[in-house]
Amino acid sequence: MDAELLAIGSELTSGHTLNTNAAYLARQLARLGFVCRRHTSVPDDAAVIGEAVTEALERVALLIATGGLGPTFDDITMTAIARATGRPLRRHAEVEQRIRAFCRAHKRPATSWALRQAALPAGGEALPNPVGTAPGLWLPLGHKLLIALPGVPQEMRAIMERSVLPRLRRHQRAPVLSRTIRTIGLVELDVQAALQRLRIPEVVQIGLYPHLRAVDVRLTIAGSPASIAAPLLDRLERAIRRVLGPAVYGVDDQTMEGVIGQALVLRHLTLAVAESCTGGLIADRLTNVPGSSRYLLAAVVAYHNRTKQELLGVRAAELLRHGAVSVSVARAMAQGVRARTKADIGLAVTGIAGPTGGTRTKPVGLVYVALADRRRADVQRFQFQGDRLSVKYQTSQMALESLRRWLSSKSDRSA
Amino acid sequence: MDAELLAIGSELTSGHTLNTNAAYLARQLARLGFVCRRHTSVPDDAAVIGEAVTEALERVALLIATGGLGPTFDDITMTAIARATGRPLRRHAEVEQRIRAFCRAHKRPATSWALRQAALPAGGEALPNPVGTAPGLWLPLGHKLLIALPGVPQEMRAIMERSVLPRLRRHQRAPVLSRTIRTIGLVELDVQAALQRLRIPEVVQIGLYPHLRAVDVRLTIAGSPASIAAPLLDRLERAIRRVLGPAVYGVDDQTMEGVIGQALVLRHLTLAVAESCTGGLIADRLTNVPGSSRYLLAAVVAYHNRTKQELLGVRAAELLRHGAVSVSVARAMAQGVRARTKADIGLAVTGIAGPTGGTRTKPVGLVYVALADRRRADVQRFQFQGDRLSVKYQTSQMALESLRRWLSSKSDRSA
Repeated sequence: MDAELLAIGSELTSGHTLNTNAAYLARQLARLGFVCRRHTSVPDDAAVIGEAVTEALERVALLIATGGLGPTFDDITMTAIARATGRPLRRHAEVEQRIRAFCRAHKRPATSWALRQAALPAGGEALPNPVGTAPGLWLPLGHKLLIALPGVPQEMRAIMERSVLPRLRRHQRAPVLSRTIRTIGLVELDVQAALQRLRIPEVVQIGLYPHLRAVDVRLTIAGSPASIAAPLLDRLERAIRRVLGPAVYGVDDQTMEGVIGQALVLRHLTLAVAESCTGGLIADRLTNVPGSSRYLLAAVVAYHNRTKQELLGVRAAELLRHGAVSVSVARAMAQGVRARTKADIGLAVTGIAGPTGGTRTKPVGLVYVALADRRRADVQRFQFQGDRLSVKYQTSQMALESLRRWLSSKSDRSA
Repeated sequence: MDAELLAIGSELTSGHTLNTNAAYLARQLARLGFVCRRHTSVPDDAAVIGEAVTEALERVALLIATGGLGPTFDDITMTAIARATGRPLRRHAEVEQRIRAFCRAHKRPATSWALRQAALPAGGEALPNPVGTAPGLWLPLGHKLLIALPGVPQEMRAIMERSVLPRLRRHQRAPVLSRTIRTIGLVELDVQAALQRLRIPEVVQIGLYPHLRAVDVRLTIAGSPASIAAPLLDRLERAIRRVLGPAVYGVDDQTMEGVIGQALVLRHLTLAVAESCTGGLIADRLTNVPGSSRYLLAAVVAYHNRTKQELLGVRAAELLRHGAVSVSVARAMAQGVRARTKADIGLAVTGIAGPTGGTRTKPVGLVYVALADRRRADVQRFQFQGDRLSVKYQTSQMALESLRRWLSSKSDRSA
């Protein structure tokens, strides 16, 4: 069944805020067999909202709108939906009570502005909001269905998970199954060339999505029963892993940091990180993984040479002779953080993130990545393009990749 | 003048990739006086792309499409535009030469797949891509204009900045001026109540945008000359700062970390950070600011108790008696990192990010933030709601906020 998403808010169309709700909603809907055919964002303008609602409901059976349900003057979604569907607003007594209780609990007055949120288009059901005051809307319109949710992601997700998904599950069809095979270090055309050596059935839709130094391959099967689609995706994943080899680091929601975490836990190894130009980003990514305290002992962001000496034991002579961005300082940082924390592995990066600080011999984007274990320390050199945040990110990617390769070489050797 | 944006790619409609291009484009267009009336995302489906192009060009004078210009089989934007506008594809010899040169420089074969990117709808001009092979398209259609750009953000931006913006500047009207006043620590209705005490002229559009523990106020003026709009925005900003007081931390693109950086530079102060539950996020945010090496001496991510002892000098007895998540350990971490690095200020956080690790007396989301200076160390206690990443982010926000307040109290006292 086809669905569309409509995001309401001038902060979205003006580019002030990123629309992150649409991606979440599309993925949730796919699991229930709904294919998202279109995402639209419109400003806080009742006429434009109404037009977009009408058009979408002509095209598809399910429309989920987000945003504009709050208590302030620029929140006009309910009014716009009421007009577009010809259903006047009606005050819901039980929603009003819930808003009053919420205001009491948060020691705030239940003003007429707050209570405005109890007015919903006639025929609509209020979906309780467990984390805020604005309820969601469930509005059947003949064979079609219009759902409206708050724009604040936490509130939107809470109502989706508590009220919308359980109800939509009753309408469930064959789910849209997909698998994303994530690769690092290849370019798009090489990935395509490898895929063309495989026989991939027509029923499978293929997408190639290039990122910074990475390409994702997404396989999608819509309209087939899961009993056929799931084993086909398994078989294709195995075939793609075979042709792409170690460039494949994971599938679906797996991340570099998650895959590395699993490998460290499996091998009972601990890690310490010394960061210069990434400024904490590597540690931040590693600690996004629940349970990372089991293997990440510490990270030291050594921005200053003094810190590199005092916290990591890099020698002043080395800093003086080679400079902070050098093979030998990268190696000394990795060895130093490993020794100080007694971790099994020390990972270090030093480089020039820019926009200033570059020279002719050491330009912006020059980065060294070092990995030290019990026996040795290896250093790799990179020259990245892009702005400060892009250099930080690419450095974190390549540091994690060097750790991933080290971990998989260990398992090969021990096997 | 009104504009629309069209993002092409099944990875967007399926929720696999976030559309970040639209926000960038909308902001660039606003500076030139174009108001974005709608953003649409559609899948890699020639019929749907064509329909969306036709509809948008009926509504507005300028359409910018992104995505689907690459060399692989799922890149069909040029074909879809050619069909929708009735302009057959023509091969551009100079684009073909550029692609051959790019392939040579990157030591890659110029395959027929790569050369496919030289075919553009008739009447269209190719916009050179300085960082990739796919050119952009500039296609005048009577009084309307269709621009197509690659979906890879670096390539899209490079073509925008090098070719599109200089040309669009010739069509420039009165720019859409806006100002965003960023607040922290207030709820949306309090901000609205404060604004209602001001007389804000009808010509100014107001939007309130709540985030995690923060609310942005956005003022927009469209269609007035800058000589009138700019001083009006200045006056309103001053009035809003007056009614909202210290909750205002910045305007427009100012970030917490940027504002803090400026204050540290101004006061010649240095900072060191000790992070437990945020795992490097505070340091990562601080180092996103160019020039942060001037004041950020170091950050220590002390995930393990052993690290807290060895790198920060927290005493084992304290960890044993109060636990790692406690007032006294937070204080010891802030004092420890300050002492070890000889920084003027030590900032520390310790808490339970979850999803596991919580107990009845110390639930997930419990966080202590400590700030130590030459004379004293203050500790604040927070109880956050939300998942691991949300707790990490809220903790970083409140840690930066405690630092910002400390810095502004210093300037008050010295004044």
